[in-house]
Amino acid sequence: MELPFSDARVAIVGLGLMGGSLAAALKAARACREVVGVARRQTTIATALTFGFIDRGTLDLAEGVSDVDMVVLCTPVGDILDKIASIGPLLKPGCVLLDIGSTKQAICQAMAALPAHVQPVGGHPMCGKESSGLTVAEAGLYRGHVFVLIPLARTSLSAQRLASALVAAIGAHELRLEPAQHDRIVAQISHLPYLLSVTLVNAVSELAAGDMLPWQLAAGGFRDTSRVAASDVGMMADIIATNRQPILESVHAAQHELAQIEQLLNTSDDAALQVRLQAARRRRREVFP
Amino acid sequence: MELPFSDARVAIVGLGLMGGSLAAALKAARACREVVGVARRQTTIATALTFGFIDRGTLDLAEGVSDVDMVVLCTPVGDILDKIASIGPLLKPGCVLLDIGSTKQAICQAMAALPAHVQPVGGHPMCGKESSGLTVAEAGLYRGHVFVLIPLARTSLSAQRLASALVAAIGAHELRLEPAQHDRIVAQISHLPYLLSVTLVNAVSELAAGDMLPWQLAAGGFRDTSRVAASDVGMMADIIATNRQPILESVHAAQHELAQIEQLLNTSDDAALQVRLQAARRRRREVFP
Repeated sequence: MELPFSDARVAIVGLGLMGGSLAAALKAARACREVVGVARRQTTIATALTFGFIDRGTLDLAEGVSDVDMVVLCTPVGDILDKIASIGPLLKPGCVLLDIGSTKQAICQAMAALPAHVQPVGGHPMCGKESSGLTVAEAGLYRGHVFVLIPLARTSLSAQRLASALVAAIGAHELRLEPAQHDRIVAQISHLPYLLSVTLVNAVSELAAGDMLPWQLAAGGFRDTSRVAASDVGMMADIIATNRQPILESVHAAQHELAQIEQLLNTSDDAALQVRLQAARRRRREVFP
Repeated sequence: MELPFSDARVAIVGLGLMGGSLAAALKAARACREVVGVARRQTTIATALTFGFIDRGTLDLAEGVSDVDMVVLCTPVGDILDKIASIGPLLKPGCVLLDIGSTKQAICQAMAALPAHVQPVGGHPMCGKESSGLTVAEAGLYRGHVFVLIPLARTSLSAQRLASALVAAIGAHELRLEPAQHDRIVAQISHLPYLLSVTLVNAVSELAAGDMLPWQLAAGGFRDTSRVAASDVGMMADIIATNRQPILESVHAAQHELAQIEQLLNTSDDAALQVRLQAARRRRREVFP
C-alpha cells in the first residue's frame, strides 16, 4: 500500500525563509498529516507554532525525524551535506529525504552514500526573497515557481511520487533535471548574476574612493543591478564551494563579453557596440516580456 | 523685475516619459503660467492635451518656443545636442534653456556656444522608469529624486533661480555639480550597471547556446540584475558616445574586480573571496538599507 501524501508526516529541518514558507504552505493547504519543525533555537520553534506553520517542533534532529515519512532539509548547502552524512540511521525505513539546496551535484553524490533504507531526492525550488528568516516566510512563496526534483537511480517510484505530491501541494511546478545540468544552469542564471552584482558594488567602491556622492545619487538602475550583492555571504560561499567549475565557466563567458564591450568602446566602434546592446535588449524582453 | 516662476511660460520639447511627466507635474502643481508641448507627432500632442499635461501643443519647434520664458529639452542626448546647435535664434532674449540629458559635459560645452541672449542651464533628474513613452508618464515621477543643475559661468542668477523653481515645483531635490564630476559619477552608478547587465544577458546567451531551459528557469536574481539591459539602445548609444572615457574607466574597474574574483575562485581561496563578497554585501546594505 502506497502512502498518500495526505497521510504523510513531514519534518522540515531549518525554519528560515525557505523552510518556514514550506511549512506554512503545507499547513495552509492541509496537505499532509503532520508538519514537524526542527530548528536550532527554541524561539524559532515558538514563533513557528504561533504562526501555525508547524504542528510540533523540536531542537533535537533525532527526535524530529524519527517517525516521519519525509524529511526536507532546508538549511544552507554546507549544513545539508553535513546532515546527509549523519542522518541516515535516524530515519525509519522508506523515509524520503528531500533537500532544497541551491546546488545539486555534491548533494546528490552525498545522497548516493545514504543507507539503503532511505529514499533520497534532490530538490531546488527556483524562488526566494531578498530578506531571510522565519519572520518573512509566507505560504505563497513557492506558488507558480519551478521546483527542480532529482531522484537518484535507486529512488523508488513511490518515494518520487511523494516528493512530487509535496511540490504540487505548495503550488510549484515540478521539473526533472540531471545534477550536472542543473548546476550548470544555476551557475548561469543565479550565481553569475550574484558575482556581477558584487563586481558592480566593489568596482564603484573602488572608483568612489571614499566619496559618498556616487552612493547618494545611485538610483533605480543601480539598485536593481546590485540587489543580489546583499545576499547572505555564508549561503553564497557554500554554493560557490560546491559549484566552482560551472561558475568559473560562467565568469569566463562574462569576462569575454565585457572585454568585447570594452574593445568596442575603446575603438569607438559604435555600430558593432549597438549590435551587442540590441541583442541583450531583445533577449531580455523575450525572457521577461 | 525678476519673473516669478508662476508667471513663466514653459515649453517642453519631447513628450516621452520624462518630458510628459515634467509637463504633468508642472500642470498638477499649477506651477507656471503655461505649459507648451512640442512633439514630433500630432497624436502625442492630442494625448498630452487629453491627459491635461499641456495647455497647448505644436509640431513646430519655432512656434512652440518663440514666446516662452523657459525651454526644457527632453529628447535623447544626440537630439539635445542637435537642438542646442540651432535653437538659439528661435528664443526670445533672456529665455532659459534647460535640458534633462543623461550626460552633461558635451551638452554644457555645446551650451557655451549659444547666442548671448540665451540663458543655458544643464540638468539631469536622477529618476526614470523601465518603460518609456507618454502613456506611462506621471506627475509624481520626479518627486523625492535628485535633480542635478549645472548653470554655465555666463548664466544669470535670475535664470538659475527660474531653473531652481522648476525643480522645486515638481518635488525634486536640486543638486549642483560640475559637468565632469557629474559624468564620472553617472558612468559609475548608471552606465556601468547598464553594461554589466548587458554583459550578463549576452554571456548567458553564449553559454545557453540555443537551449531555452536556462531562460525558463531564470528567477528573481536574474530578472533584477538584467533589468536595465532592456533599456532603449538608441538612448544608451547617445549616452555612451558622449561619456566614453568615464565609462571606460568604470568598465576597467569592473574588469579588475571580476578578474580578482575569478582568480580567488580558481585558486579556491574561499577566505579571501568571502572578504570581497562581505564588502559588497555591507556596502549594498548601507546604500539601500
